[in-house]
Amino acid sequence: MFNSIHEECGVFGIFENHTTNVANKVYLGLYALQHRGQEACGITVCDNGVFEAHKGIGLVGDVFNKESLSKLGLGNMAIGHVRYSTTGGNNINNVQPLVIRHNKGNLALAHNGNLTNAAEIREKFELDGAIFHGTSDTEDIAYTIVKERLKSGSIEEAIKNSMQIIKGAYSCIAMSATKLIAFRDPNGFRPLCLGITNTGGYVVTSESCAIDSIGAKFIRDINPGEILTISSEGLSSSYIPTNKTSLCVFEFIYFARGDSIIEGSSVHMARINAGKILARESKVDADIVIGVPDSGLDAAIGYSMESGIPYGIGFVKNKYIGRCFIKPTQEERESAVNIKLNVIKETVNNKRVILIDDSIVRGTTSARIIKLLKDNGAKEVHLRISSPAFKHPCYFGTDIDSEENLIACKYDTVDEIAKEIGATSLAYLSIDGAHKLASNSKCSFCDGCFSGNYPVDLPKNQNKNKFEQKIKRVEK
Amino acid sequence: MFNSIHEECGVFGIFENHTTNVANKVYLGLYALQHRGQEACGITVCDNGVFEAHKGIGLVGDVFNKESLSKLGLGNMAIGHVRYSTTGGNNINNVQPLVIRHNKGNLALAHNGNLTNAAEIREKFELDGAIFHGTSDTEDIAYTIVKERLKSGSIEEAIKNSMQIIKGAYSCIAMSATKLIAFRDPNGFRPLCLGITNTGGYVVTSESCAIDSIGAKFIRDINPGEILTISSEGLSSSYIPTNKTSLCVFEFIYFARGDSIIEGSSVHMARINAGKILARESKVDADIVIGVPDSGLDAAIGYSMESGIPYGIGFVKNKYIGRCFIKPTQEERESAVNIKLNVIKETVNNKRVILIDDSIVRGTTSARIIKLLKDNGAKEVHLRISSPAFKHPCYFGTDIDSEENLIACKYDTVDEIAKEIGATSLAYLSIDGAHKLASNSKCSFCDGCFSGNYPVDLPKNQNKNKFEQKIKRVEK
Amino acid sequence: MFNSIHEECGVFGIFENHTTNVANKVYLGLYALQHRGQEACGITVCDNGVFEAHKGIGLVGDVFNKESLSKLGLGNMAIGHVRYSTTGGNNINNVQPLVIRHNKGNLALAHNGNLTNAAEIREKFELDGAIFHGTSDTEDIAYTIVKERLKSGSIEEAIKNSMQIIKGAYSCIAMSATKLIAFRDPNGFRPLCLGITNTGGYVVTSESCAIDSIGAKFIRDINPGEILTISSEGLSSSYIPTNKTSLCVFEFIYFARGDSIIEGSSVHMARINAGKILARESKVDADIVIGVPDSGLDAAIGYSMESGIPYGIGFVKNKYIGRCFIKPTQEERESAVNIKLNVIKETVNNKRVILIDDSIVRGTTSARIIKLLKDNGAKEVHLRISSPAFKHPCYFGTDIDSEENLIACKYDTVDEIAKEIGATSLAYLSIDGAHKLASNSKCSFCDGCFSGNYPVDLPKNQNKNKFEQKIKRVEK
Amino acid sequence: MFNSIHEECGVFGIFENHTTNVANKVYLGLYALQHRGQEACGITVCDNGVFEAHKGIGLVGDVFNKESLSKLGLGNMAIGHVRYSTTGGNNINNVQPLVIRHNKGNLALAHNGNLTNAAEIREKFELDGAIFHGTSDTEDIAYTIVKERLKSGSIEEAIKNSMQIIKGAYSCIAMSATKLIAFRDPNGFRPLCLGITNTGGYVVTSESCAIDSIGAKFIRDINPGEILTISSEGLSSSYIPTNKTSLCVFEFIYFARGDSIIEGSSVHMARINAGKILARESKVDADIVIGVPDSGLDAAIGYSMESGIPYGIGFVKNKYIGRCFIKPTQEERESAVNIKLNVIKETVNNKRVILIDDSIVRGTTSARIIKLLKDNGAKEVHLRISSPAFKHPCYFGTDIDSEENLIACKYDTVDEIAKEIGATSLAYLSIDGAHKLASNSKCSFCDGCFSGNYPVDLPKNQNKNKFEQKIKRVEK
Repeated sequence: MFNSIHEECGVFGIFENHTTNVANKVYLGLYALQHRGQEACGITVCDNGVFEAHKGIGLVGDVFNKESLSKLGLGNMAIGHVRYSTTGGNNINNVQPLVIRHNKGNLALAHNGNLTNAAEIREKFELDGAIFHGTSDTEDIAYTIVKERLKSGSIEEAIKNSMQIIKGAYSCIAMSATKLIAFRDPNGFRPLCLGITNTGGYVVTSESCAIDSIGAKFIRDINPGEILTISSEGLSSSYIPTNKTSLCVFEFIYFARGDSIIEGSSVHMARINAGKILARESKVDADIVIGVPDSGLDAAIGYSMESGIPYGIGFVKNKYIGRCFIKPTQEERESAVNIKLNVIKETVNNKRVILIDDSIVRGTTSARIIKLLKDNGAKEVHLRISSPAFKHPCYFGTDIDSEENLIACKYDTVDEIAKEIGATSLAYLSIDGAHKLASNSKCSFCDGCFSGNYPVDLPKNQNKNKFEQKIKRVEK
Repeated sequence: MFNSIHEECGVFGIFENHTTNVANKVYLGLYALQHRGQEACGITVCDNGVFEAHKGIGLVGDVFNKESLSKLGLGNMAIGHVRYSTTGGNNINNVQPLVIRHNKGNLALAHNGNLTNAAEIREKFELDGAIFHGTSDTEDIAYTIVKERLKSGSIEEAIKNSMQIIKGAYSCIAMSATKLIAFRDPNGFRPLCLGITNTGGYVVTSESCAIDSIGAKFIRDINPGEILTISSEGLSSSYIPTNKTSLCVFEFIYFARGDSIIEGSSVHMARINAGKILARESKVDADIVIGVPDSGLDAAIGYSMESGIPYGIGFVKNKYIGRCFIKPTQEERESAVNIKLNVIKETVNNKRVILIDDSIVRGTTSARIIKLLKDNGAKEVHLRISSPAFKHPCYFGTDIDSEENLIACKYDTVDEIAKEIGATSLAYLSIDGAHKLASNSKCSFCDGCFSGNYPVDLPKNQNKNKFEQKIKRVEK
Repeated sequence: MFNSIHEECGVFGIFENHTTNVANKVYLGLYALQHRGQEACGITVCDNGVFEAHKGIGLVGDVFNKESLSKLGLGNMAIGHVRYSTTGGNNINNVQPLVIRHNKGNLALAHNGNLTNAAEIREKFELDGAIFHGTSDTEDIAYTIVKERLKSGSIEEAIKNSMQIIKGAYSCIAMSATKLIAFRDPNGFRPLCLGITNTGGYVVTSESCAIDSIGAKFIRDINPGEILTISSEGLSSSYIPTNKTSLCVFEFIYFARGDSIIEGSSVHMARINAGKILARESKVDADIVIGVPDSGLDAAIGYSMESGIPYGIGFVKNKYIGRCFIKPTQEERESAVNIKLNVIKETVNNKRVILIDDSIVRGTTSARIIKLLKDNGAKEVHLRISSPAFKHPCYFGTDIDSEENLIACKYDTVDEIAKEIGATSLAYLSIDGAHKLASNSKCSFCDGCFSGNYPVDLPKNQNKNKFEQKIKRVEK
Repeated sequence: MFNSIHEECGVFGIFENHTTNVANKVYLGLYALQHRGQEACGITVCDNGVFEAHKGIGLVGDVFNKESLSKLGLGNMAIGHVRYSTTGGNNINNVQPLVIRHNKGNLALAHNGNLTNAAEIREKFELDGAIFHGTSDTEDIAYTIVKERLKSGSIEEAIKNSMQIIKGAYSCIAMSATKLIAFRDPNGFRPLCLGITNTGGYVVTSESCAIDSIGAKFIRDINPGEILTISSEGLSSSYIPTNKTSLCVFEFIYFARGDSIIEGSSVHMARINAGKILARESKVDADIVIGVPDSGLDAAIGYSMESGIPYGIGFVKNKYIGRCFIKPTQEERESAVNIKLNVIKETVNNKRVILIDDSIVRGTTSARIIKLLKDNGAKEVHLRISSPAFKHPCYFGTDIDSEENLIACKYDTVDEIAKEIGATSLAYLSIDGAHKLASNSKCSFCDGCFSGNYPVDLPKNQNKNKFEQKIKRVEK
């Protein structure tokens, strides 16, 4: 699927045993995590307890240049964040890392995930006199930690107590004046892993590809419920009671980069597996298997392997179309569907095509791609989706369209959807299949957006878009 | 004096009885207040309780363009702020208006001045679990109001109670969902005034020149200790007990724009008066009176009027030298003193010159200008300063250099200073003279930076630069 | 091969029978041609004989925004150009289209290729009083046409005469006040093709993918030696005597986009074919075939098809690394080789790998990639190159490194090169194989850079970098 | 007069006897000349015959930053240019210095002025095969010199011959690989002067204030008709026959900076004189004399001196209103006249005011200023203009409005104009008075725009806007 589901954020933290150019390391790490969030980013460096921060709206390459990197200076610790904002969100106050100046010690915080009780926490604090600057739930986490810190003997204890209060998905890195502390919710909704640098320092980040990017070595995943402290005394962990793991399966299907290893499974191989399972579950006779770039390509190779039907390259994607591209007018649009994606006619002309994509949201993009294939001579287009159908909202950080827009909610049967989008046939991966795609993983998965069965109780009156971008609360 | 003393901030608020383009009005108002702060600026618009904000680092013309102004949309109220940052301060978190999202009603706040008990307030709140995002004392005011709001029946009551807690200089505009509230400290350190628009709305701002800039009419000053509420029901005021007024006399001497009227006196005329008083206090025989542009020109005209010595134009100032200008290297600097300011030789050649400036800080600029005049043939240069000598720090928002840098603290006598900077003679305005320059004013003045006698008790351990730009507090 | 050979330029022209938004069409076309030149670009619109132009340094998305596109206005004709500059060339004077204001009628010119007698032409004109503003040979073409125009009855005749004078590679589009004229050198070194829009207008461009991008239909290639005039009277052609066609074979191997059709052959299929031929020519036993992204992928699929060895995805390329990326320091570089390209370990670990790339220039990139594969567990790395070895300069627009840097010139045998770069084995496509890869093409190819046999006589004292970026000619 | 007449361009050249940072010197010089042209600028450095250039659209501070200055490198010569473009002109091809790469030696050229036979020269060259890239007449000069160079023994001879061909106003600096050559038209329409640096090098520039800006010393003016060569052998001059000098009197009245000395007269003193003469010619009884900032202030001081009526400051000009300022909408404009210029009420209230401005073009600005004064209580407003009335076009580089817009062309008498703009009375400086204002000058003046008597014959069919910005010449 082409640019339609989004996840919120990637985090990166580094602890070195000496003062060095940690900002540059985070910069490289954020480049490797850029696919997790393209709206905004930031880096905070700690040099002997002194924090220096730079953040901004835009890609890593836009926000950071030689000047801003050099202003960050040297240090022995740093954390960074790339952000995808669900709600409008060109609000600089929401950009992370969040830096908190506080009497009990300053703190910087980077968060990937989504709390389910953020509104309640916020209300409670506000009624106690707190001021919130932004609209992101990261501020809720920060307030909770600061409040607990006043009652606790250490920052770790404060975080441990806070984890009893905040609910939902959070993979976080906190940086105090002397320590880097990684903590992950008891369900382990979002990934978080640990690596070691070639100078004996440590790195904590959302995906192992970011560990590779700075030439460090992967050690292990941070466990669900774990609080891992990295300090000059090395590593130490404590835990809060965990639930059954429920990693977001979309990390494998779509979000993570193919070269990352999550919970023991290769993301690339999980996608190949999804294609293989799909081939077993919904075989069809055809001449060629092609994938929608970039995220459908791996599953297409898997489908080809399992089915024995040749794999082909069906599309060329224009890699220069970015945020500067001025969209054609409505009038031009009809003739211009193939600007971003053009069909290689020789691959599909006069053939029965199996088209692999990773998901369908509204169905309009799929319909357009299928039409494009048929215009280029495809005799049949069998669409196979390497994930189950979206039918329910996600409360843990994935930004799925609202239910009334989801094509899988509009129609009762898969055949009706196939007809709507012009496919000769359509099949989704089964939910059961989705649970099997990362076969080496020691964890289990959340399938709430497919099944409606969520691994944790949702609060009453849950409203996904709880914090409006515009502030509209008339004074009481 | 040439670019060396700075004041912090200008504020502008507008309340109209209908939805209209209030953002544009604030934009024009901020342009008129730009001389009060060139570091950063912002505007917050209120449309039926919904706040929309835009702010940034830079001049009004840099931060606002057609797109950002149109994104602010229409509304019936708006407030704006231009900022001069004393402490480093390229920190977007310090840029105002400060917008507070709160359960009891949202609030936007714009502040000109400086609290004397900000550090204490901050510590108290932090120990109660509060998080401060920036380093400016405006956040202290906001926290105090929010805390008081929880105990109060109205926002006005909360502000009234807060004014018993916060100490020092503050001329503020607060905007709630339905009201614009202006409040000014009981000493009236910084100006704040009221005007009426041609559609019957109201405007509150630091200087009357901003009222003129949108074609509105000046009504009166906001009184020291006054809390003025502007709502759909019109104007209403309440007061806290006031002290003897102690307006910063530098508003007349340097900060405010010549076309503004403050506390009943014309700023331009006050400067003319300063020149006249100076002429009476320290007459000298000479051929021509010239002023250092731009702030010494008015006093030079006054000196000429009173003394009968002809007024002349001694300098051309290069109006294109701005923040883009790349300073010459040390080597080039010697030969390049006259890039910003060049002498008109015909005015001073072979003449005994009286040179009027508004202040001396370190003395280096004065020395350079005097040398420039002598190089162009001036036979004598009698420097006359239209304010008394700086010898003490300001705790109320004026950013004076530290005492060890002040030339008036280094030498015991005026003659020693004259010798140091190469002047034939030197005289300052007397403190008594400074109190008389705005003869129509109904208020009295603070002369703390000249006399060391401050109108309010200063807290112990007062440290002017109490919030460091870099955050360095090791966790306890 | 990874970012090391470059070609110069892509051209796009459109002629409509009515006034319409031709600038937007060219904009889309240039986006589709962006892979042919990323240094600079420009568009010139003709509205009833009035030319309006905009051009700049940078990508299409950087140079053109809504404002600059709307300033171009409507018209019935427009031409555009994307430029890759061989010699430094951040010189705005070299950016095309070149617009010539002339008494005999204005002219805009866009050129892809490289003249072999540019220096001689330039000298002759200069000695006659001509002034050259830039350093590109497009100005030579323009001067020649203008000079011939003074002696000719029509612009077509002037172009025809000019084509007898200029030598080398040129695929050009000229726009006069009333006509669009495409002309291609008699060897047909660079591609140029014709399409028809859905409103009956015509488009001429370097590659058919640009025709697709605006929803137009491909008609045919412009023939070598052809001068094609498009006017309100339709199409008309004339010819100069042609040579044996010698299209640059690198258009198929590397330059052109996979979805383009050149001289009757699909570029994508030609690359698949190159892989197949390579598999036949230099088979080796292995476990997996992988390609270097992006240009080695097609050939890898072909190799896999022909050899029966499974195709795999060996790398993830970071698509966010662009011109903003700050390169790591030398110290960091060692640990940071995998920022742009990271290996998917699961694909290659413990396997004998066949690695397909399209070319080797200096060999350093190949060596780094091979090391990366071995570091990730590859037991053997057999490098197969889908083109013959570069050993000679190109005079027709391909920017190959200088001979002393070419690894194929440094070593006598392929085995020595394999040893140098750490490959288990190495094989290039044969020159004979290169001639067969576009089997449907009706044309023959230039293989000068492989064989040293050039299809046209080269002038004596040929100096490839004949125009230095810096101008250094002491006055005589 | 407020931003309504414009002059074209300022030039600056430096020759040092050693390799040094000449680019920085030109940078400072252009800052001092910025008032002569704000549209575009450029610098070309010569290092041992190698030219390095940078130019762009915008102010000196926009176009040049540390990076672009350092890329220019060191050298022993450099020339620079600031441009005001009369005809639209955001055309980078018109930005100077013009750099010509030519077989007979490269040349850079900077020009201030306007040719009267540019169209004829251009046509002649075009019919001979020449290509013009831009629309400025500087290209005509360049072509002429290049053509003459082919027939001449030296570049000086070529320039001398060229000066027999080109007609009109030109103050030029040419830079060859080894020499800096300044030349000025035989009428001396535009200023050009010579200075010596503190290392014994030379500087040639439009105004002496630019000589001061780099700490150099003024030597003398370049004479009308002079060709001054600066080389390693020192200075040498030759001449073409000159006419009666006819310097543009507006250089004194408006264009030049007050601290410049032109043809022996101080610009500031000339303006004071204009005010004095005006006071003698058209005395009126009043209470205060004020000037329109900035260009009316000097004459106001002169008027006050001569008449004995006190001088006052009537206006505050907002110095932050620049090109970023978003103009108010029509609706807002009425209430916003005082954004750029606000009246100091205390100066004019209840007074009879003499208002001095340097010129009237359309009269609308004068009308608005007079209304502003009356709104602020002025009882009478007597407008006195320190130049004669504009009634005729300028062919020599001053951009005056077209005749149908000039208020002095619309009405027969001064009283009618006074009535139209709301002045109590109005008087212009007499033409005779204008000739006397620079009493020390050894030259005489052009008064063509006042009298219609031009010092040189104008060509037939003279069309001032001969080169349209848009190119519209249908092919013949």
